[in-house]
Amino acid sequence: MERLDELVKLLSRLPGIGGKSATRIAYHLLTCDESYNRRLGEAVSTIKEHVHRCPTCGSYTEDEQCGYCSDASRDRSLLCVVEQPQDVLTIASSGSYNGLFHVLGGAINPLEGTGPDKLSFNELLKRVREGAFTEVIIATNPTEEGDTTALYVQQLLKGFDLNITRLASGLPIGGDLEYADRLTLARSIRGRVRM
Amino acid sequence: MERLDELVKLLSRLPGIGGKSATRIAYHLLTCDESYNRRLGEAVSTIKEHVHRCPTCGSYTEDEQCGYCSDASRDRSLLCVVEQPQDVLTIASSGSYNGLFHVLGGAINPLEGTGPDKLSFNELLKRVREGAFTEVIIATNPTEEGDTTALYVQQLLKGFDLNITRLASGLPIGGDLEYADRLTLARSIRGRVRM
Repeated sequence: MERLDELVKLLSRLPGIGGKSATRIAYHLLTCDESYNRRLGEAVSTIKEHVHRCPTCGSYTEDEQCGYCSDASRDRSLLCVVEQPQDVLTIASSGSYNGLFHVLGGAINPLEGTGPDKLSFNELLKRVREGAFTEVIIATNPTEEGDTTALYVQQLLKGFDLNITRLASGLPIGGDLEYADRLTLARSIRGRVRM
Repeated sequence: MERLDELVKLLSRLPGIGGKSATRIAYHLLTCDESYNRRLGEAVSTIKEHVHRCPTCGSYTEDEQCGYCSDASRDRSLLCVVEQPQDVLTIASSGSYNGLFHVLGGAINPLEGTGPDKLSFNELLKRVREGAFTEVIIATNPTEEGDTTALYVQQLLKGFDLNITRLASGLPIGGDLEYADRLTLARSIRGRVRM
């Protein structure tokens, strides 16, 4: 079945969706309300027309500026540097951060051809120079690329009168020592905190 | 973000897609080619226009009759009775069955209001009466509802000169005795076969 196969093929290109899930979703759509399918199809087709990057911080927005940059109640002395736009949502919804954001657009990864010139370091420098930040929290991923990028940001901002911090790495809350991987455990021992 | 939230909400109604996966997919779509989004959106919107149920067996098709019913090379003495249209694909792609199919449209489930009148038993009777089947393989799910439905089909076809069989239940191949659940193990002991 040409159309159904095409739908399955397109669905299986989505992240986290393998061939079996794609087939399951396609067959599910055949049992759904036509109106739901139309709404979902329309939303998928047009989402990129409505959502763009915030010119200030680089996160996604449907308005001229993003909700974080334009929110006067947020603490303008704190800047959190993340790799991807979706990281903004993740950190904002933790409920533990009320400052501003800066999206780099990725992490330094020479093997994949992502050098510092591909990331928004110039914009970051400009914001730090012109803003009134007292702390920059580096929230790149706890991976080799994320760590490299964090070091790069640290070097970049060395001349400024700023606290530069990095999200803590260690055991996940609710986890079990027995199931922690060696690297995480090593990091949690090196980074142990006084009680 | 209204549009993005709407997209996430719509996506999270798909089977196997929770809130986190829906968010991940929505953000992924923001990084995809506009042309991919349009193709996927169009495919989702219009799939129900192109796919309908085969008037003979009840499986999905984009043509007048489904590929199984119209395929002259399939064995017309075998009929496999399944619950859902997607079960046809599952059994056909096992490579171990080359007969025809009959889709009941579900299983008997009084608690959910699915009585025998909701399922295509009349069409099944008609096909068995008019066809040249020598064996009917009941491939309803190995659940309480599937077993009930299998018994119902068996009763229904009692008067015909037919072998009525049911898919074997037992240990999954490659599985480990230790991890088999009690019911599966019990079924595999009761249904043990001579070596």
